Formats: sequence, C-alpha cells, structure tokens
Amino acid sequence: MESNNRNKESKHISNAVIRRLPRYYRYLGELINEGYERISSKDLSIRMHVTASQIRQDLNNFGGFGQQGYGYNVRYLHGEIGKILGLDETHNIVIVGIGNIGHALAGYLMPDRNGFHLCGLFDSDPDKVGKVVAGLTVHSIEELPAFIRDNHVEIATLAVPGSAAREVADLVVRNGVKSIWNFALIDLNLCVPKGVIVENVHLLESLMRLSYDSKKKNEK
Amino acid sequence: MESNNRNKESKHISNAVIRRLPRYYRYLGELINEGYERISSKDLSIRMHVTASQIRQDLNNFGGFGQQGYGYNVRYLHGEIGKILGLDETHNIVIVGIGNIGHALAGYLMPDRNGFHLCGLFDSDPDKVGKVVAGLTVHSIEELPAFIRDNHVEIATLAVPGSAAREVADLVVRNGVKSIWNFALIDLNLCVPKGVIVENVHLLESLMRLSYDSKKKNEK
Repeated sequence: MESNNRNKESKHISNAVIRRLPRYYRYLGELINEGYERISSKDLSIRMHVTASQIRQDLNNFGGFGQQGYGYNVRYLHGEIGKILGLDETHNIVIVGIGNIGHALAGYLMPDRNGFHLCGLFDSDPDKVGKVVAGLTVHSIEELPAFIRDNHVEIATLAVPGSAAREVADLVVRNGVKSIWNFALIDLNLCVPKGVIVENVHLLESLMRLSYDSKKKNEK
Repeated sequence: MESNNRNKESKHISNAVIRRLPRYYRYLGELINEGYERISSKDLSIRMHVTASQIRQDLNNFGGFGQQGYGYNVRYLHGEIGKILGLDETHNIVIVGIGNIGHALAGYLMPDRNGFHLCGLFDSDPDKVGKVVAGLTVHSIEELPAFIRDNHVEIATLAVPGSAAREVADLVVRNGVKSIWNFALIDLNLCVPKGVIVENVHLLESLMRLSYDSKKKNEK
C-alpha cells in the first residue's frame, strides 16, 4: 500500500534499494521533461521494467510519497529522492590525475551536474601543471592539501595510475576528504581509514566481465 | 578442499563469482610482477581481504587449479582465469561517440589491453570525422555497418548521449555486434534483443551513490 507516512530513517534501508535510487531519479527526471505531473506505480513499473510492488516497497522505505488513487507526484518525488541522494546540496569535487580519464571526467563534470561542482584539477606532472582543461587550470599536487582545506572539498576523484593511488588517497584523506571516486585499478576501500567512502569505477574489469559474458554466450 | 579436477562447465557459476574473477586476475598479475611462483589460498586471502575458504570455493568452480600442500601456481592460475575471461583471444572494439568520454576511452584502450583491440572510432558530427584520436582516424557513423562486418567487431562502446544510444545500439546489433559497453545514461539492456549483452558504466549514478553514502555518514 502506498502511504503518505514520513517516518524516514526508522528502518534499515538495504544497499540494493540505495543502488536503485539514482535510477528512479533518472526516470522521474525524464517524466518531468516529458511533461508528466503524476504517475501510478503501475505505469512507472512498466517504464522501468520492475514490478509495481517493488516500486511501492522501495519508495515506502523513504515514507512513500504516493497517494492512493492519485499515484506519485512526479516533481515532488524527484525532488525528494534528490534530497535523499544529497543532490540538493553542492558537493565540491577535485580531480587528481589529468591523463585520459581525468581529462574526460573534467569535461564530463563541467558545467556543474546535479550539485556536483568541479573546483580543482591536480597532477604531479610539471608538463601538465598550468594547462587549462575544461576551463580550469591544472595545479601541482603540492597545492592540493591547502586547496582541499580552503575549498571544502568533499569528493576527490582519483584518476591516477594504480601505483600512485594509495599515496594520493592518503594525502586527500589526511586533509579532510571523506569520499573518493576511484578510477585507479586498486581496491582503495581496503586501504583507507574507517569512515572514508570509496566508490570504485574499474573500467578494465567492467570490460573483462563483458568479454566473459560474450565468450560464455558463444559457447552455448 | 583444493582439487585438481578439471570438471569445468559442470555446474552453474553464480554471477557473484564471475564478478570476482577480474579481481583474482588482477591480484595474480601483481603477484607475477612481484616474482611469486606460487601462493597458498591463505596468503592470497590475506592480500585480497577475503576468506581462504571463499577463494577455494570460487576457484573450485573452475576446477580448482590448486594442489594441497603446494598452493596455487600463480602464473598457471593467472593464465587459466585469463582464458575463462576470454582474455587469451583478441576482441575487436569500436567506440561510437568521440566526446569527452569516448576520447578518453580511446586513449585508455591504446595500445591493446589484455586482448582488447580498439580498431575503429565513429561519430556523427562532421567536425569530428577525419580527426585523429589516439592514433586512429574518426570515421562517420555511416561507415559503421560495413566496418563492423569487415572487421569482425565484437564489442561496441557507446559513448553517445542518452538520447542517441538506442538508435546506435540498434544499428550495431543489426550489423552483428553482440556485446555493448554502454556509457550512455540509459538502460540499454531493456532495449536490445535477447542474446545481446550490455555492460553499463553509469558514471553519474556512481557519483550519486557516493553522494548518498557521504550524506548518510554525515548524519550519523
């Protein structure tokens, strides 16, 4: 049953539900762009290819937001999920390592996306320092500690080689960063102190899973 | 118990095990670089921060490869997992969409990585066609169908905007591609025919999960 109960934070929310929230956010954003004002859990379920029951269960974790016979108010639900995800606040981000991936991420994050504000680029290579990428000047990694403290940097993006990742992670954590978006092929979550959050994007391993699946399919 | 049984393909291998294989492959590669010839499941478990029992269970899915009292032959196990992942074969890849992300992926994949061979870059923007990126010339998307057929392209990387992703996916699938590495923020797996494999890398949603975790932690 959908309910309007705002009894948030009262129960443990599973990781699986959390991982689905950005997807809800995305579909609701599309509905807004298409001019929808409200949607039933059934219609949303058809769009998202999940059951209406799962949608109701998922959203009930956060107090429901739906009304029986009316469905969900699309803009309201989008806003509430955005708040849950912390997208109503600004998150200052730096990128460390301006190679192929760091360069691309700079372009990807400019201009601000959903409250994520790229404010600094850093590299240890003197040839890269001083260059302008996506409108920002690349600074020396030696300037990183002071920059983090002066600019309330929340998220450090690590696009450095695996061999350098641990040292850079130590550096940013020592200076107050609590969240790391890690593109280096190393299990950083095993190296950082408790309380620091790491989200890994391991591109090569993603490609290997594709290769495995493809090989498997061909064997059938 | 470790065993030398080669009874592969005899049981269903869970998705969780599969998703761990690239990580085994990476750790074993590091061991080779450090000069290790063999390693016990216990020592490997300490490195990887998983239980020795899980390592034995995981690797037994593929026939074990270990010998009691000896442990695992590092180079052999690395090679066997590589074969399971299909890394002993060449996989021809194209990238469609040479914006920030496509450009970075081209640089990332050149030269060949673990059997992944980038052979073509495509874009619909006439201003990009003819440019050289990571040593390859960008071709018009109109040349893509013939190119896929002539070059035995297995994997198409989609680094196009979400609004164009479905059309490009249809195009590559119609011409024989069975594996899609998808960076567009759209659930392509819901749009492609059965038998086509999609591996999504949704960068913005990864960042949103980081933001959620970070917000959650701050509330505690």
